[in-house]
Amino acid sequence: MSRAPLRPRSAYRHWTPITTRWHDNDAYGHVNNTVYYGWFDTAVNAWLVEAGLLDIAAGEPIGLVVETGCRYAAPLAFPQPVELGLALARLGGSSVTYHLGVFATGAAQAAAEGHFTHVYVARDGRRPVALPEAWRARMQTLA
Amino acid sequence: MSRAPLRPRSAYRHWTPITTRWHDNDAYGHVNNTVYYGWFDTAVNAWLVEAGLLDIAAGEPIGLVVETGCRYAAPLAFPQPVELGLALARLGGSSVTYHLGVFATGAAQAAAEGHFTHVYVARDGRRPVALPEAWRARMQTLA
Amino acid sequence: MSRAPLRPRSAYRHWTPITTRWHDNDAYGHVNNTVYYGWFDTAVNAWLVEAGLLDIAAGEPIGLVVETGCRYAAPLAFPQPVELGLALARLGGSSVTYHLGVFATGAAQAAAEGHFTHVYVARDGRRPVALPEAWRARMQTLA
Amino acid sequence: MSRAPLRPRSAYRHWTPITTRWHDNDAYGHVNNTVYYGWFDTAVNAWLVEAGLLDIAAGEPIGLVVETGCRYAAPLAFPQPVELGLALARLGGSSVTYHLGVFATGAAQAAAEGHFTHVYVARDGRRPVALPEAWRARMQTLA
Repeated sequence: MSRAPLRPRSAYRHWTPITTRWHDNDAYGHVNNTVYYGWFDTAVNAWLVEAGLLDIAAGEPIGLVVETGCRYAAPLAFPQPVELGLALARLGGSSVTYHLGVFATGAAQAAAEGHFTHVYVARDGRRPVALPEAWRARMQTLA
Repeated sequence: MSRAPLRPRSAYRHWTPITTRWHDNDAYGHVNNTVYYGWFDTAVNAWLVEAGLLDIAAGEPIGLVVETGCRYAAPLAFPQPVELGLALARLGGSSVTYHLGVFATGAAQAAAEGHFTHVYVARDGRRPVALPEAWRARMQTLA
Repeated sequence: MSRAPLRPRSAYRHWTPITTRWHDNDAYGHVNNTVYYGWFDTAVNAWLVEAGLLDIAAGEPIGLVVETGCRYAAPLAFPQPVELGLALARLGGSSVTYHLGVFATGAAQAAAEGHFTHVYVARDGRRPVALPEAWRARMQTLA
Repeated sequence: MSRAPLRPRSAYRHWTPITTRWHDNDAYGHVNNTVYYGWFDTAVNAWLVEAGLLDIAAGEPIGLVVETGCRYAAPLAFPQPVELGLALARLGGSSVTYHLGVFATGAAQAAAEGHFTHVYVARDGRRPVALPEAWRARMQTLA
């Protein structure tokens, strides 16, 4: 387990507000660890849709998740809402890795942080493709 | 399948905004039918917490779900946010049934509607108990 | 809340074993009410795939859920496995309604029971279509 | 993204069979990345219960998740069942890290692999505690 402090709010370039749900909490009364990954998925894809890059139903290319990870520093519990910070960690030829931070809404300190890597593929056949230049340019604004 | 039209916005007394998530969508590209029930759970319990009635971790009594149902009239899909309408359908001695309506945020027509019945029990032993008068009075404000 | 006893095991024609998961349990320590609907979805679609009728990725037609409901009689909790009973309740021109029963594996009494209605539509455009005769014949074996 | 090959079946000491569910699949038609973490949670806690160590409702101590990660090598899709391999990666004074492997049932090659770290705390107050000797001895059998 890494003991490094979590990144501050200033490390993030985009914020996504997310409402929590009753069943985010598990048998120990706090948001279950798997739910944070659902928030990562949501923050990344919501940004891609808002940026005009991703058309979930029919667009090209699509991003497949190949690696994720998360460190949990403090518990969260419904009905506390959260906000997800998003930043670019690394831009490859056909892949992109994001930094993500989970904050109770308005909190100074992160409750958790993680990383999330998409590899881009063609919708049919799902073979890796180069990230289009428009996508790369827009992703760079998260650096 | 009932063909009756869904209740209008005016049928509801309280509204809960809920953000959708990437994985609310299922393999057919729309919010999965089970997710609506998670929204029902969330709207009911968020209202109970806001009303100062429910303390999830330690309060008395607690509500156990004994019956739910939902009719789906139109599809929804992430990233579309939704708002849940809540109203009192029936108040019994130890139980309460709510009407719930699912609307795309700002939409005039409901996408789905359902009902949700809690029976109140003691946290330890989980035997039915009479709803406290303070709870009944507050629930009546949703009628 | 209906007080009628739940259907016995003999009411069901097909059984689907399902393993429970840590996060099926919610903050009150039992399987959350929404999870049962995920089991209904799973039992119905697993049977359709096994029967050679449903090709999730590309087949025609596809079933959209238009109505569901569940009554909960006894709690369940991870790691207890369950088995889902399936039976035909009603076969319409383009719709089918199933009875579903949730049993702790091997239990004589149901923990919950529900109903689940699919309307069949074309994958593109999603307009209702008549259920193919091969589907109807196979569904009748669940009566 | 690490390009190292995934661990073989022989790296794991315990196996947990898990049935997939309809809504494990997401809008791209494969099991969503977050679901794998739910399987990790399930495999770890099912083993702890089977080993007689964990009493979810009332036992001491309880494990809180402080770090997880996963690499995804090949897609999976409902209704394909899976089996989770479990092995001890590191045993600390009050923490334990597991290796986890996700295999389509019977497959030679892993579809994904990850790690999962629990820190043990007292149920009340949730302060770290030393892992009891009986727990340590049993966890060592996974090495």
